[in-house]
Amino acid sequence: MKILHLPGQLKLIFQDHNDYLTAQHSILAMSAYDSPLLIHKLLSQTLYRQSPSEIVYGGTRETWPVLYDRAMRLASWLKSSGVKRGSKVAVVDFDTSDYLEAYWAVPSVEAILHTVNIRLPPEQIVETMAHAEDQIVLVRDEFAPLCARISPHVKSLEKIVVLSDSDSMPETAPHGSILYSDILKEAARHEPEDFSENTPATLFYTSGTTGSPKGVWFTHRQLVLHTLSTVAALSFSESPVRLEAKDVILPLVPMFHVHGWGFPYASGLLGQKYVLVGKYDPGKILEKLSEEKVTWSHMVPTILNLVLNHPSLENHKEALSRWKVVIGGAALPTELARRAMKQGIKIMAGYGLSETAPILTLAVPAEAEYDLPPSEMLEKSLLKTGLPIPLVDLRIVDKDMKDVPRDGKTIGEIVVRAPWTAREYYRDADLTKELWAGGWLHTRDLATIDKSGYVKIADRTKDAVKSGGEWISTIELEDILNHHLSVLEAAVIGAKSSDWGERPVAIVTTKAGASLTESELREHMSIFVEEGRIAKFWVPDRFVVITEALPKTSTGKIDKKPLREKYASILTP
Amino acid sequence: MKILHLPGQLKLIFQDHNDYLTAQHSILAMSAYDSPLLIHKLLSQTLYRQSPSEIVYGGTRETWPVLYDRAMRLASWLKSSGVKRGSKVAVVDFDTSDYLEAYWAVPSVEAILHTVNIRLPPEQIVETMAHAEDQIVLVRDEFAPLCARISPHVKSLEKIVVLSDSDSMPETAPHGSILYSDILKEAARHEPEDFSENTPATLFYTSGTTGSPKGVWFTHRQLVLHTLSTVAALSFSESPVRLEAKDVILPLVPMFHVHGWGFPYASGLLGQKYVLVGKYDPGKILEKLSEEKVTWSHMVPTILNLVLNHPSLENHKEALSRWKVVIGGAALPTELARRAMKQGIKIMAGYGLSETAPILTLAVPAEAEYDLPPSEMLEKSLLKTGLPIPLVDLRIVDKDMKDVPRDGKTIGEIVVRAPWTAREYYRDADLTKELWAGGWLHTRDLATIDKSGYVKIADRTKDAVKSGGEWISTIELEDILNHHLSVLEAAVIGAKSSDWGERPVAIVTTKAGASLTESELREHMSIFVEEGRIAKFWVPDRFVVITEALPKTSTGKIDKKPLREKYASILTP
Repeated sequence: MKILHLPGQLKLIFQDHNDYLTAQHSILAMSAYDSPLLIHKLLSQTLYRQSPSEIVYGGTRETWPVLYDRAMRLASWLKSSGVKRGSKVAVVDFDTSDYLEAYWAVPSVEAILHTVNIRLPPEQIVETMAHAEDQIVLVRDEFAPLCARISPHVKSLEKIVVLSDSDSMPETAPHGSILYSDILKEAARHEPEDFSENTPATLFYTSGTTGSPKGVWFTHRQLVLHTLSTVAALSFSESPVRLEAKDVILPLVPMFHVHGWGFPYASGLLGQKYVLVGKYDPGKILEKLSEEKVTWSHMVPTILNLVLNHPSLENHKEALSRWKVVIGGAALPTELARRAMKQGIKIMAGYGLSETAPILTLAVPAEAEYDLPPSEMLEKSLLKTGLPIPLVDLRIVDKDMKDVPRDGKTIGEIVVRAPWTAREYYRDADLTKELWAGGWLHTRDLATIDKSGYVKIADRTKDAVKSGGEWISTIELEDILNHHLSVLEAAVIGAKSSDWGERPVAIVTTKAGASLTESELREHMSIFVEEGRIAKFWVPDRFVVITEALPKTSTGKIDKKPLREKYASILTP
Repeated sequence: MKILHLPGQLKLIFQDHNDYLTAQHSILAMSAYDSPLLIHKLLSQTLYRQSPSEIVYGGTRETWPVLYDRAMRLASWLKSSGVKRGSKVAVVDFDTSDYLEAYWAVPSVEAILHTVNIRLPPEQIVETMAHAEDQIVLVRDEFAPLCARISPHVKSLEKIVVLSDSDSMPETAPHGSILYSDILKEAARHEPEDFSENTPATLFYTSGTTGSPKGVWFTHRQLVLHTLSTVAALSFSESPVRLEAKDVILPLVPMFHVHGWGFPYASGLLGQKYVLVGKYDPGKILEKLSEEKVTWSHMVPTILNLVLNHPSLENHKEALSRWKVVIGGAALPTELARRAMKQGIKIMAGYGLSETAPILTLAVPAEAEYDLPPSEMLEKSLLKTGLPIPLVDLRIVDKDMKDVPRDGKTIGEIVVRAPWTAREYYRDADLTKELWAGGWLHTRDLATIDKSGYVKIADRTKDAVKSGGEWISTIELEDILNHHLSVLEAAVIGAKSSDWGERPVAIVTTKAGASLTESELREHMSIFVEEGRIAKFWVPDRFVVITEALPKTSTGKIDKKPLREKYASILTP
């Protein structure tokens, strides 16, 4: 028998020890305050110390406290406009400081920030906004004409707010639209109160290369934990791209794409200088690197490639030599990494998915490499998929959910658990069940794991070629093709084979002025077979050299879907 | 009306929009897995990559995976011994690897690790163990005689496990005791399953200088968040003591004292080399610094003072030049910091309480100081109480809970909210109510805040002298006294005054061979009055030079309680 003494001579008597403990830990501690994990609290230290670091966008410079003040004016306008817990507020914009304000404003009133993918075709934008039931949309002036298409199909839409650098309403904006700058002039400042950390905060649609865009949403708790773990892993790990509070960030992952990989929130936590470039233009990016003394960026390989190929590159040697770059979204090709390092850029790969907020792994070096020069770290760690960051539980499993051996060879699927994984595909129970089959989030990425735990993506399940029951990694084959000095871009796809089910076929474009033949490429491949890097049966059956550019997805990755359709029957005519 | 489509043609129809949202976000996501924040998961990356970093204790060296394996053997023995959710398992030990194993083992089986304060008098140790209702105790062999006193008073106690470096049962151990090494030989390895992150994980008693020791307990969630925030803040901040995965840690805050400030968990997360020294001996500490290439430690000022006064100091110049030190538990005196820096030691202050797990603030430099040499950072930031770390909500308030101005002068009480604050004083509802008055945790520390947000502790509410209604900071006065070259230690207390309520009195000891008079000390003080550092009415009414050492608390701080008693009436005889 246990007795619990309460204030005012009250006593509770328990027979069961566990009941007693439960009551004790909850009742006695009633007066304590539980601090929920809320997104706007990530900014609290930066605001507390009135960080002087600036958010730079076009001609405007504002500190984090100023940005937060503007965000909280937007927040109070949202509340007075009927936005409440669960309301969706969409943003259709490039990377601007207005967008960054919405990142903090919308979740602070328990509403859900829908970051609309502006690279989708207009009808898909409308489709995702209708699916989300967006109530308010913040739209950049040059997208205003899109609103005419949105309004009739998105029945839930109540208000259109126009974002404009010139502070003037474009003629193309629908009647009744409101100018963002007018809202900020009039609105009072919202002071957010605490609410449940499990409140949904963001929603976006993955632009996957198959099927309709799928919605994923994340809660305050998930995004706070994602931010803390990412920041910790990037800062404490010994790597060439170590993140520091004094870094100047120029994000090159669009804010509509998986929370810009979380850096709008991470940089707010650190109170860093944050340089926004609107639309991505390699020449402008290089200029900003020099002008704003940028030290840190994250991007997909395509963007790095564009920057490195830009004619003004040589004018920015000093800026490049202090640039730390994290690459994700696709494997980082060795040759691209070496070209970047030749310019003095420090580089490292990372990995994640739309469904995981996104960060899961970073290719940080292990203890044994700490004293190596970065060029030697490349193959050992920096180019790999890496190691899980804190709180990520990651396995590579076969089709029976058994862990594959740590031999760096056996290919399996990456499955994960983490405190920031999407709970569902929004309103799609069947796909959700597939995603979470067996209680683990299925990444649909194939990978190997070596004895030190380093993961290396072999391929996407949908991209890998299954030849005679064996997986062939198209990424590995593409990397080898990219080693050829005349190759500009390469894509390997699976084509139907009557003997093997599928066989690999390579589609290649050449650099300006270069020419290539099928036999040259076959010979190039054979070197890597002899070296033992790939098995002989991995060599593609055909090498198709084309003159037009390879098709790209909205996020700039090579889009293999049209290639697969076009070349499906090339081996079985 | 809203319709929710479930698998198998089931539909749920809602009238209320919010009900619909709630159902949607919980029911549809049933197949997803929620990863709880559990302590043993902090170690998962270190285990995953099989970190080769060693935990060094005496003659033994074991990697984190080996340590975890031993911890999980202890865990399975605990389970088979009837330990379950809420059971208390006490440890009575110095800083050893056995202790570190218990840090991971006990919470992994949902039991509560009671870290017994071995510096308390034996009767208080027994009192705290009886209050905690400890079920099992792990006791270092040299404390075995204590068990004879424990057994009759701690009715809940079922088993005694003896920790011994020599792997032999001491004669003084009670009949029926079990040797820890025997347990590890036989036990299977426990594989922890997930459970609620709100499960209590640790319990200890604060050795405050007033009243009986008070119990505080912390949950898995609280300790995971404390670890993440501490690690992030120490690693991303620009400071001379920046924490890195490659640091070699030699903790100098006892593991029985507020989770050793969280470093047993933080170092596990980072997979760092961790050097344990058992009992603290300044000569041995210096040896280990050199031998193990230690780079990072945390401690109270007293320990640093002991190390700096040790005769072998000059033999460890190289080791001292790479040593980064965080000081907490008491204000870091300027003079001590300068002496440390003269040896090449990098130094910074931090602040927290037993009730806050403990870390609340770190004295990290602000942007404007990044390019200053550390000696110039000292007064601007490094010696202050600092800035709150992420997720800590900190205010300095007057008695009406209004924020004091940011003038660096007005003294108020520090109150906080954070996701890792103690919910209660264990089984003490009245003290809990006081602690949490007004929904904020009251630190009982008085401080000022300057315009950049830097907090500077003025005093403990119980230590500060209230003279004519105005607070006088005894810490400031002691710091000034310590500037005098002949002063070894100084304590300022409040003595009864018929005119002012209380007036300050200084109790001073001299360095070996030095002598001091009251008028010399008064003259020394007057310099600081002229400089404007303190008001004239702050100068103590009496300076008492004594020959015996000042009394100390169990954690090595000066204990003012006996001094206050002894000198209470010195001004009103």
